[in-house]
Amino acid sequence: MSIGRSEGQQLPPELLAKFKTIVGDKHALIDHGDVAPYLSEERGLFHGRSPLVLRPASTAEVSAICRLATEHKVALVPQGGNTGLVGGQTPHHGEVVVSLRRLNKVREVDTASNTMTCEAGVVLQIAQQHAAGVDRLFPLSLGAEGSCTIGGNLSTNAGGTTALAYGVARDLALGLEVVLADGRVLNLLSKLKKDNTGYDLRNIFIGSEGTLGIITAATLRLFAEPREIETAFVGLTSPAQALKLLALSRSEAAGLLTGFELLSQIAVEFTIRHAIGVRDPLAGKHPWYVLMELSSPRDEAQTSLEAILTQAFEDKIVDDAAIAANLSQRLAFWKLRDEISAAQKPEGGSIKHDISVPVAAVPEFIARADIAVGKLIPGARPVPFGHLGDGNIHYNVSQPIGVSRADFLARWRDVNELVFEIVRDLSGSISAEHGIGVLKRRELPLVKDKIAIEVMRQIKATLDPLGIMNPGKVL
Amino acid sequence: MSIGRSEGQQLPPELLAKFKTIVGDKHALIDHGDVAPYLSEERGLFHGRSPLVLRPASTAEVSAICRLATEHKVALVPQGGNTGLVGGQTPHHGEVVVSLRRLNKVREVDTASNTMTCEAGVVLQIAQQHAAGVDRLFPLSLGAEGSCTIGGNLSTNAGGTTALAYGVARDLALGLEVVLADGRVLNLLSKLKKDNTGYDLRNIFIGSEGTLGIITAATLRLFAEPREIETAFVGLTSPAQALKLLALSRSEAAGLLTGFELLSQIAVEFTIRHAIGVRDPLAGKHPWYVLMELSSPRDEAQTSLEAILTQAFEDKIVDDAAIAANLSQRLAFWKLRDEISAAQKPEGGSIKHDISVPVAAVPEFIARADIAVGKLIPGARPVPFGHLGDGNIHYNVSQPIGVSRADFLARWRDVNELVFEIVRDLSGSISAEHGIGVLKRRELPLVKDKIAIEVMRQIKATLDPLGIMNPGKVL
Repeated sequence: MSIGRSEGQQLPPELLAKFKTIVGDKHALIDHGDVAPYLSEERGLFHGRSPLVLRPASTAEVSAICRLATEHKVALVPQGGNTGLVGGQTPHHGEVVVSLRRLNKVREVDTASNTMTCEAGVVLQIAQQHAAGVDRLFPLSLGAEGSCTIGGNLSTNAGGTTALAYGVARDLALGLEVVLADGRVLNLLSKLKKDNTGYDLRNIFIGSEGTLGIITAATLRLFAEPREIETAFVGLTSPAQALKLLALSRSEAAGLLTGFELLSQIAVEFTIRHAIGVRDPLAGKHPWYVLMELSSPRDEAQTSLEAILTQAFEDKIVDDAAIAANLSQRLAFWKLRDEISAAQKPEGGSIKHDISVPVAAVPEFIARADIAVGKLIPGARPVPFGHLGDGNIHYNVSQPIGVSRADFLARWRDVNELVFEIVRDLSGSISAEHGIGVLKRRELPLVKDKIAIEVMRQIKATLDPLGIMNPGKVL
Repeated sequence: MSIGRSEGQQLPPELLAKFKTIVGDKHALIDHGDVAPYLSEERGLFHGRSPLVLRPASTAEVSAICRLATEHKVALVPQGGNTGLVGGQTPHHGEVVVSLRRLNKVREVDTASNTMTCEAGVVLQIAQQHAAGVDRLFPLSLGAEGSCTIGGNLSTNAGGTTALAYGVARDLALGLEVVLADGRVLNLLSKLKKDNTGYDLRNIFIGSEGTLGIITAATLRLFAEPREIETAFVGLTSPAQALKLLALSRSEAAGLLTGFELLSQIAVEFTIRHAIGVRDPLAGKHPWYVLMELSSPRDEAQTSLEAILTQAFEDKIVDDAAIAANLSQRLAFWKLRDEISAAQKPEGGSIKHDISVPVAAVPEFIARADIAVGKLIPGARPVPFGHLGDGNIHYNVSQPIGVSRADFLARWRDVNELVFEIVRDLSGSISAEHGIGVLKRRELPLVKDKIAIEVMRQIKATLDPLGIMNPGKVL
């Protein structure tokens, strides 16, 4: 049988019956209408096909699926909330989809150890709510949090706006449960902060996008809920000034700084123009903006924020600033940030990037990319924004006004090439938080150490010798 | 040729000559007196033998050594400062020792990105000093910091007293350079906080104790130097009270708490009795003590510490406390903590453990272990101390007064067995920060998930198919 190739997989009826037995008829989807939602993603960028979607309800069922798949060399694509941005969750070649959404139990919340053990299918927002319910914070936060799942977050090593203070998904998982390609269940669940008994296996699976095994559960770190959160929206002249504000904030309020997002003027304009109920918090226009947030377990966030901004005005780093006076203003500030991607849609095609460079190199990156893109496609409108504190910029480019969307999007790879060259030159990454999936698979060999790719292949061959785990992704 | 077996390795003269050519005659040690310091460690617990100690000065030389070793199936033992506590750095079976100490360049310090790239042989204290020289903090800190090296710290994933606030060695390395068994150089050096381009290879090598490759350099994270550090020595009645003080401290001073060490009364007594110039900071005796430290980039540490202690007195959590009035008092408090291990020596034999359990389970662990050890060896004196905030206790047991040291030490495995059983029962780890080496190799299968050990073996076989990298360690 050809695996992961364009012919797709034909499942003999006896094999289909065996898969059905594992999860029950009701949870083995084969009708076109039932399967369809698992084949496409929200933006419509990727479409796949699949003869079968399996919806196991337990680790044991996932294990049985993998065992059977190994026995019959059937390729599998694990899927969580189906919100990935690089096509990693799509069955491009007719693979069987294993949806983890029914593994949705919060197995344990332990406030003494500040840990929470969730199954892979727990929706991120539900996990956040469980933590809040016991007066704790599970800090991972991203646009898709209402749909994406813990398993997906970990298999893609999700980032988001809180990574600055709390780290990426990798940093939030103390333990992991993984079903291997052959069905073996690897129990790395642990609440320990320190454990030097052998190789760190957990981190191999986190961020491997389902190509080495299926994450079925994780022990997550919880934090104290901040008692005070203060948010400011700041206008300034350049990314370099924003970097100065970041340095000042870190020096004045190290440990309290929980958000530091950079927004270009055009990003703010698009959002105000298209998002419902979003207003500019500042009176005049500014070339750049920063959305910054301080959180504190005590009552010092306000004092610190005011001290930072006072100093920043004196040092002529910022030109204007508004501090959210209440929760609804705070949410309005964040809405301005969160709706940028959506607000790009009415402006036509957008060629997107999720890059990171050393934090200090962000101004240079944006300046060089703007010039290069402008030369390649006159009138193209760069809409940079993102997590300045992590050096992670979503360098999106909206199409020139009045040209054809399709013609513009046809230049996707040309634009990528230009941008990635600058990223490489600055020792950056072409995928800071979204992963490789299929979208950046061709580019990976251009930016990654050759030996690193060899070692990745060696590990893939060891853990998935038949190549049935999410074939054609990453490598 | 038998590798890693008790016969040891005989090196044919032509092969010896080739190794010499790589590093130069001066740095290929064969004379007994030259080789001897690399064969034993400070405590005299492990002794090895070796026909050759190689002292390469560059990554290229390490690569050439590994290539030649692969070609001739010669087993290698990488060694840094030779301060490991589990025999991982010792050539137990006549392997060739590769000392990394001459790879001692600090390649770059980047204050804009807050990173520092060090070669493996840079001594930890030198790395700390380089950071301090540019007004930054490299927080890793442990007893052996004057001798241990960055390469050793990473290959053993060292912990220490600052892990509470800054994480273990793993958390402090953004990038890594590794020479693989066959001589390939894996360049994972990176200053990026976010990089989702493929599998996380860095963490496979960190903590693998030289069994998968030789770490030759690392890009380390730097932090702002705290402007204010406040230290208190506190007397209280039990580990449970200490846990309450920890919770109170976290709630009052989250982000500021940079040290929280638990000390038993006997540990303090031993140190005062045997260490030079160490005095009890408190007037009366207490069953337990906590050494706690708050660090702040601002000027709030003192206020916070005083608030915590005032509250703790009110809540009857602590019975007495002294705050260090100046730097010399602060250093004296820490000396009391740091000299515990050394102060055990004059008290006779000590059977040592480096365990961790979920933080909340520490009191139960100590209570059960004390009872079990007391039953097994009446008169044995448990001397527990360690990093309470990480759940990491050095549960050392000093011999009963008046019995033979050798007879007591002969019970090492019996005592281990008892203690490890309690650790297992509490879902803990038998090696929190020291690693497995040879000391705990036999116990690993008893405490580790069976599938995890299988996967470790698979990865070992993939990256080191000839088994020449630090054979007989960990697995």
